Amino acid sequence: MSSFALNPRLEGDSHFVADMPLSMLRLMKDANYPWLMLIPRKADLVEIIDLEDGDQVQLMREIAMASKVLRSVTDCEKLNVAALGNQVSQLHVHVIARFRDDPAWPGPVWGAVPAQDYETERSDNLVDSLREALEDAIR
Amino acid sequence: MSSFALNPRLEGDSHFVADMPLSMLRLMKDANYPWLMLIPRKADLVEIIDLEDGDQVQLMREIAMASKVLRSVTDCEKLNVAALGNQVSQLHVHVIARFRDDPAWPGPVWGAVPAQDYETERSDNLVDSLREALEDAIR
Repeated sequence: MSSFALNPRLEGDSHFVADMPLSMLRLMKDANYPWLMLIPRKADLVEIIDLEDGDQVQLMREIAMASKVLRSVTDCEKLNVAALGNQVSQLHVHVIARFRDDPAWPGPVWGAVPAQDYETERSDNLVDSLREALEDAIR
Repeated sequence: MSSFALNPRLEGDSHFVADMPLSMLRLMKDANYPWLMLIPRKADLVEIIDLEDGDQVQLMREIAMASKVLRSVTDCEKLNVAALGNQVSQLHVHVIARFRDDPAWPGPVWGAVPAQDYETERSDNLVDSLREALEDAIR
């Protein structure tokens, strides 16, 4: 039996935000969109249906939590939630804050425009705000 | 209080497959990919987090059910699950069977290539197979 190890590409593309009961919550390094990723910390997962039923329910809870926190921090117009995994197969769920003036609207974000680096201070501030909102939501 | 009415564009783009406890299950009219859509039958939903907690859990159950049924019928290589709603805001969840030789692989399907009509017999057969697999899964 293998243990959970975060895929190196997912790790390199994102900053750690928090550990939820099931999933690691990370912020994508793309200033085009406030973009979270949930990665359940279990080995050998590719599809949502690879999770046991109880973990599927927990994943939905964490998707909802991440969605609420992201919307409260960004005041976004729409949320996009997706588990695709065509390029990196390790199960990961995108939760993305969308705006009518973002560079991919109304299309999906994947492959639309190249990722844009955050200024360090801006991503640090966003991570801090997300952690605070998460703590408020859990309390 | 308004009651549920299926968005006309979602309706026009898809065939009815079945009613699950929460969601209507439909097949997109696009022969490029076996592509299901779940639409929770409640009024005024845009985001997953607009659903009450219990319905969020039920939606996850129905996503899992649709995923298993679609994979069993198509023997696909990957599932894509997504709630985007940038173009049609009524809450709908895509469950798409992906193959390494499909016209959008490894990108997302939205906007990749124009929808391709099914021959009527082929979509009828697919709907029948999906209904049978669903009944087997529920039994």
